[in-house]
Amino acid sequence: MQLPIYLDHAATTPVLPEVAEAMMPFLVQTYANPSAAHALGIEARHAVEEARGIVAEAIHAYPDEIVFTSGGTESDNAAIYGVAYALENRGRHILSSPIEHHAVLEPLQYLAQRGWEIEMLPVSSEGLVAPEEVARRIRNDTVLVSVMHANNEIGTVQPIEAIGAICREKGVLFHTDAVQSFGYLPIDVRKMNIDLLSLTAHKFYGPKGIGVLYVRSGIPFEPYQKGGGQENGRRGGTLNVPGIVGLGKAVTMVMEQREGESARLQRLRDHFIAAVEQAIPEATLTGHRQYRLPNNVHFCFKGIEGESLLLSLDAEGICASAGAACSAGSHEPSHVLQAIGVPPDRLRGALRLSLGRATTEEALEYCLHVLQKAVGALRQKQRVQT
Amino acid sequence: MQLPIYLDHAATTPVLPEVAEAMMPFLVQTYANPSAAHALGIEARHAVEEARGIVAEAIHAYPDEIVFTSGGTESDNAAIYGVAYALENRGRHILSSPIEHHAVLEPLQYLAQRGWEIEMLPVSSEGLVAPEEVARRIRNDTVLVSVMHANNEIGTVQPIEAIGAICREKGVLFHTDAVQSFGYLPIDVRKMNIDLLSLTAHKFYGPKGIGVLYVRSGIPFEPYQKGGGQENGRRGGTLNVPGIVGLGKAVTMVMEQREGESARLQRLRDHFIAAVEQAIPEATLTGHRQYRLPNNVHFCFKGIEGESLLLSLDAEGICASAGAACSAGSHEPSHVLQAIGVPPDRLRGALRLSLGRATTEEALEYCLHVLQKAVGALRQKQRVQT
Ligand SMILES: Cc1ncc(COP(=O)(O)O)c(C=O)c1O
Ligand SMILES: Cc1ncc(COP(=O)(O)O)c(C=O)c1O
Repeated sequence: MQLPIYLDHAATTPVLPEVAEAMMPFLVQTYANPSAAHALGIEARHAVEEARGIVAEAIHAYPDEIVFTSGGTESDNAAIYGVAYALENRGRHILSSPIEHHAVLEPLQYLAQRGWEIEMLPVSSEGLVAPEEVARRIRNDTVLVSVMHANNEIGTVQPIEAIGAICREKGVLFHTDAVQSFGYLPIDVRKMNIDLLSLTAHKFYGPKGIGVLYVRSGIPFEPYQKGGGQENGRRGGTLNVPGIVGLGKAVTMVMEQREGESARLQRLRDHFIAAVEQAIPEATLTGHRQYRLPNNVHFCFKGIEGESLLLSLDAEGICASAGAACSAGSHEPSHVLQAIGVPPDRLRGALRLSLGRATTEEALEYCLHVLQKAVGALRQKQRVQT
Repeated sequence: MQLPIYLDHAATTPVLPEVAEAMMPFLVQTYANPSAAHALGIEARHAVEEARGIVAEAIHAYPDEIVFTSGGTESDNAAIYGVAYALENRGRHILSSPIEHHAVLEPLQYLAQRGWEIEMLPVSSEGLVAPEEVARRIRNDTVLVSVMHANNEIGTVQPIEAIGAICREKGVLFHTDAVQSFGYLPIDVRKMNIDLLSLTAHKFYGPKGIGVLYVRSGIPFEPYQKGGGQENGRRGGTLNVPGIVGLGKAVTMVMEQREGESARLQRLRDHFIAAVEQAIPEATLTGHRQYRLPNNVHFCFKGIEGESLLLSLDAEGICASAGAACSAGSHEPSHVLQAIGVPPDRLRGALRLSLGRATTEEALEYCLHVLQKAVGALRQKQRVQT
């Protein structure tokens, strides 16, 4: 077993060698601007359009509904602002959930300062949004519902199809952030009635800096990043050809292996969760036991500082996280854990282990062993100090 | 001599092998999220901070003034919106030029719809903005001046330092789009009194999908892309580590070779311009003869369709452009050529040849030969038709 053991796949994943290999020719050789009219430009354009087709097929969309972006954050910003500004004269009420990623929450907070009314849906203690609550809250001036497919901290998977059906019935646009789910769960934007959907390649073994915003054709959408008219006027900026090719290759590999790999990870996950619950006292599984990302393990340990626990694990060669990678270093307790009502004595004791392709049973056994020791030692230390 | 001959470096450049090589380890091996607290995250963070230092030094800024973006378009959008929204209660008058890139013009047009007053500075027939005109037009409610360093179509280089000095004196923020110039001309944000500056790596042999916005420390700035608080809260989104490392390497190589390479290109350029003027009748050099990017050649040919000329060149293995790559395929005459008053009979006969590292004297000789033939043939055909 090789150290370090990487259990932070929700933060980001390695680029698969096949993906890196697919990208290479588009860095050094087929480097032209895909908007250029000449032969080299046409070659680059073909590669972009091939990737667009692959993405469209994977989520049951049409190629011209796929807009390439710089990642999940841009996709989320573009979805929120894109609909809000396009429909600002029709209404300014937006429904979302308090456990969304900051890439959704921050644009919403900004809109709230500018006259929009942002209403947060209630979430259960397991992080679930009830479709009925969406139905109850949609008003005449509601222009958008944004509820994520799967949560990046606690792994809870939302009843997206039911929420989508309600939005469709009421004639309200529906955005879902599928950044965490796409690598693990099937997505069908038609069946699920999704109008806008965010993806980012680096969460499914593609490169960083490239993402997708699916925009259902015909919906009102004010372009977020404006410039040279690329992407049918929906996103300005020279297309990141190597990134797009890499994303396309990563999507192909997801589609080939998702079902088997998700089943494998789910088995590892459930076995590991059971083992932790047995071996470590006062450890609460966070999120939903069943409606849960196959690769997500999240516990809150009573009376433990998550940051100290991470240091202990890191010292033993285990890469994990206390929650969202982007807030690492901030010492605020997670907004997700607060929203689902984790009690104060466990709020700072969060640990997220996110499994991936390289994760083995053996590695998780080692991890359990280290975790048990570390939690014990930290609790012991605290008892001595107090 | 190998075909095709690529003379479209203003649209984009190949990634140098050294740059691609520097990026590789950060795709497959050192792949962690640089925001992560664990050992792998710290390694990625170090690489990002090293690149940030390289960029800062190259433009005489401080590292914490460097914000990594997804490219020139995002940098321009972020600069314009960032200042406009941050200062919306102080004033809503913005000065810019009609020959800016669409990545500047489109956000300005959008602001104009939302109550801002966008005033366009006059430009000379050679594409120059006069600093006195900036001074004359700055008002009490002027919050931003945005004038590009060098134009992407006609290559005209603006008197940025003089404009910067005026903005500083009058207490108005100054943004410059240096996307086209950085690879060829020295930039010193302190000396030039620049408050915000846009760069994109793919114009100087770095990868696509990664750029820089320099934001002078302490200036009012509303973050454009909002999310996980990265880049000191100025740009949300997982950092594109391989892109940033590639950009850093490309900047290093620019700094080592810019002076010599710019001198070489300038000689080739001047020689080629003289040869075209001698060989082809009714060909007008567009832009300024002296204040001109070392790698830019731009002609308007009387009575010629630029699109047909491009096809003829392409058929002989020459990759060129009629203007901005992003508008390729659109059949509107260029806004830049219109703004500098190119007469109607030459407006559609534009050809931009942008030189680069691989450009040789021999290639330009071949190009001259093909160009002369092509222009002759197209004019002949037209005479027959009319
Ligand atoms: C649920 C979710 N949404 C959005 C993002 C942002 O994606 P990116 O980092 O590609 O900008 C992330 C991860 O960072 C995420 O987990
Ligand atoms: C002057 C100028 N500004 C901005 C841009 C946009 O940069 P990017 O394509 O990296 O978004 C370009 C080129 O496309 C340009 O030439």
